[in-house]
Amino acid sequence: MTHISNAISEAVIEALKKEVFIPVEASGRHVHLNAVDAAILFGEGYEFTKIKELSQPGQYACKERVSIVGPKGTLNNVIVLGPLRKDTQIEVSSTDALVLGINAPLRQSGEIVDTPGVTIRNGEKKVNVKQGLIVAKRHVHMTPEDAVKFNVKDGESVKVKVSGERPVIFEETVVRVHKNFRTFMHIDYDEANCCGYNKESFGIILK
Amino acid sequence: MTHISNAISEAVIEALKKEVFIPVEASGRHVHLNAVDAAILFGEGYEFTKIKELSQPGQYACKERVSIVGPKGTLNNVIVLGPLRKDTQIEVSSTDALVLGINAPLRQSGEIVDTPGVTIRNGEKKVNVKQGLIVAKRHVHMTPEDAVKFNVKDGESVKVKVSGERPVIFEETVVRVHKNFRTFMHIDYDEANCCGYNKESFGIILK
Repeated sequence: MTHISNAISEAVIEALKKEVFIPVEASGRHVHLNAVDAAILFGEGYEFTKIKELSQPGQYACKERVSIVGPKGTLNNVIVLGPLRKDTQIEVSSTDALVLGINAPLRQSGEIVDTPGVTIRNGEKKVNVKQGLIVAKRHVHMTPEDAVKFNVKDGESVKVKVSGERPVIFEETVVRVHKNFRTFMHIDYDEANCCGYNKESFGIILK
Repeated sequence: MTHISNAISEAVIEALKKEVFIPVEASGRHVHLNAVDAAILFGEGYEFTKIKELSQPGQYACKERVSIVGPKGTLNNVIVLGPLRKDTQIEVSSTDALVLGINAPLRQSGEIVDTPGVTIRNGEKKVNVKQGLIVAKRHVHMTPEDAVKFNVKDGESVKVKVSGERPVIFEETVVRVHKNFRTFMHIDYDEANCCGYNKESFGIILK
């Protein structure tokens, strides 16, 4: 009987998890390139090699890596994400920004007006981008169905508790709702290290 | 009149701050040495040079710096804190532990049984310590008077909201009460970067 009741408990917990828990992903430093910068760094008409689909539909990790060069230091082996975007954007953690020696502002992805530039290098090729270096604000991508379920709206700021070895509640976490999204919370590596994130970590919206 | 009422508001806010806010300090990576390891690294009977008193009475930063050497990488210019302790202890962030290539466990200061060792180097001199590498658990040092005021006990685990550019609530924060303490919350640099810590950041105990 214990065996059966354990199995039932586990099934209930798994079902509940799917209902109320939000999967959490930690994003490492990465670069989105626009067509112009991609051509400078990799050559005109270069085709990037997709190596992994990301959680958000249409987004993928490329085989190609670049270096990000600041006045104080360099971050090597930084992954390029595809597809190409309208604007080049370089997302780093606050720790990374200290290494570079650039005061990178906390911004939502895409909000790059008045952000600092940086040098992106691929071997001997390099481009000095005028703006686009940010620390990405933590956020939750969400399907419209899940937004109804969790009773949140696009653009709403919520508290999310993330489990881990040293759990934290992240305040001011922006929810972004779109039919092309899949529901995932994205934090950076400072935030991941801060909560003792692991692959089993999950978020709960506290509002 | 606006001028006067503003001045009154500010005075009230300042007074309230002192009542309910806990000052927060971010601790960088550092080393506490025991007498044996200090003698190996700096010579028998070496006198360390105090350069700064820390917030906790009797604790101070030394002029002396060491390197921490792991299988994957080295952390240079790591500060030595005084006075000497019974056990050598090396406190790093999770980010630092990744650089070293050592899985440093999350521990309260002093709890170093079954923690990994590491090499500490001062120029040509070095010592391979058998244990003592930890990621320090966030904690609040507190006077007995403040423990009464905040209604907490020594060893109690509380939630603390820390202000900053991206505020977080740190769960499982241990309160340590002692008559020789001054009331300060200590977080590491992963936690500091995670909440957008600055010198004005303060904590509020939510329990």
